[in-house]
Amino acid sequence: MHLVTVRTESGTRAGRVEGSEIVLLDHDDVRGVIEAEDGITAVTDLDGERMSLAEASLAPVIPKPDKIICVGVNYADHVAEMGRTPPEAPTYFAKFARALAGPHDDLVLPDPDHTSHIDWECELAVIIGSPVRHATTSEDALAGIAGYAVLNDVSCRDWQRRTSQFLGGKTWESLTPLGPALVTKDEVGDGSGLNISTTVDGVVKQESNTDHLIFNVIDVVKDLSRILTLDPGDVIATGTPGGVGAARTPPEWLAPGRTMITTIEGVGQLVNTCV
Amino acid sequence: MHLVTVRTESGTRAGRVEGSEIVLLDHDDVRGVIEAEDGITAVTDLDGERMSLAEASLAPVIPKPDKIICVGVNYADHVAEMGRTPPEAPTYFAKFARALAGPHDDLVLPDPDHTSHIDWECELAVIIGSPVRHATTSEDALAGIAGYAVLNDVSCRDWQRRTSQFLGGKTWESLTPLGPALVTKDEVGDGSGLNISTTVDGVVKQESNTDHLIFNVIDVVKDLSRILTLDPGDVIATGTPGGVGAARTPPEWLAPGRTMITTIEGVGQLVNTCV
Repeated sequence: MHLVTVRTESGTRAGRVEGSEIVLLDHDDVRGVIEAEDGITAVTDLDGERMSLAEASLAPVIPKPDKIICVGVNYADHVAEMGRTPPEAPTYFAKFARALAGPHDDLVLPDPDHTSHIDWECELAVIIGSPVRHATTSEDALAGIAGYAVLNDVSCRDWQRRTSQFLGGKTWESLTPLGPALVTKDEVGDGSGLNISTTVDGVVKQESNTDHLIFNVIDVVKDLSRILTLDPGDVIATGTPGGVGAARTPPEWLAPGRTMITTIEGVGQLVNTCV
Repeated sequence: MHLVTVRTESGTRAGRVEGSEIVLLDHDDVRGVIEAEDGITAVTDLDGERMSLAEASLAPVIPKPDKIICVGVNYADHVAEMGRTPPEAPTYFAKFARALAGPHDDLVLPDPDHTSHIDWECELAVIIGSPVRHATTSEDALAGIAGYAVLNDVSCRDWQRRTSQFLGGKTWESLTPLGPALVTKDEVGDGSGLNISTTVDGVVKQESNTDHLIFNVIDVVKDLSRILTLDPGDVIATGTPGGVGAARTPPEWLAPGRTMITTIEGVGQLVNTCV
């Protein structure tokens, strides 16, 4: 099942994708579906008002998660290209909900006097379905996952490297597309074995497979759940493979007019043009 | 004016402190007061049901902020004791709302098999009152501030240093006391010139003044507002002075039975015992 959050004149609305249509549901967004009694399974067969998927304006699939936790340096080729050593534990940093953008939104680049080294990072995002705390087995971790989406961890490298901590380069307003849908885990399992790629203006920049994650989805959910409770609607971005702009010679940055397409096999595709 | 969030049998409730009493307000928490029409000024003279301040169970003054943004290495003596170089820009990392604890709560230390190097960090916390975006003047920045509170940025140093990024050591569940009250800015101004201290079991460990901040409250609000919109109820922890346990010889850690008292002149005091 693919669940989306649609923008309507009266605010956002959750919907279930059926072929070329969206069946609108009685929740403000996909987080509302997850948090409701019986959760996602309750909406499998519900019918209701329909709209065209192609004509819909999609919001970030979870517009306001309590947490967006990102894993850095988690593909070996990306670790090498960034000149870092392979980590012994997952590297976590945060974004805030204000950073999110819709899966097809134009991205309004910040004033170049503020930041001008803006880069792409295609990532598999995990969306939590039920509280996870102290998960010690793969089964515990998997039970807490509702499904997956694509997240483009657009990064302002000058601000990311301004200090030792990434956050200041990672949470710029409305620069992080998330979606297009929450694809439930019955279709994607534990998120392994999925091809992942980025093209910019039609040229392939990143191309890998989630099997090359250093810490996979299960590892990360178990580890994070030692620190704190993962809550329904929380988003975990699992890291990006090699091929980012910062690691190219010369470095390559986003600019108005450039279009990124970030794709994960079986999960979906984000298409975002910089303006 | 001092506003608190009180735990009651039917959930939390906002209140205004009057001497030894709390006047209960028609909001679930202090964030609700801030977000309501006319905001904080609307509750200055409201009367209502009263309860004893001494007998109240206080929640984190903002139980669920959208953002908790912390500034690291922001007092010169703390920069030196941690062996870092003075930063040229503010260093930001995050916590999530799940990390917060009440101002007088016992802190349940995590399983020592998971983390055992747990440390104190007394900090002046700024609480945002109205949206701030692209603030370029001190007046713009100050206009967005509702007031201040005390935050004890309790840190799991082993996890903070496990990777390059602090988040994993900073957002452990219910280990970060915040409160006791939001003290409105008419009493505290721009947060400068305030004595700040920590005692552990009655021994002074940290003792400084917010005049020694490398990046002060106004600097930080202006800088953050370039990255994203600061929203009502957001919490910004401005950094901790020298004297943390990790920098002592030998290092000194929190353990069950130890009590921290973190105090900021004119803002308030947190009293938390580890269990």
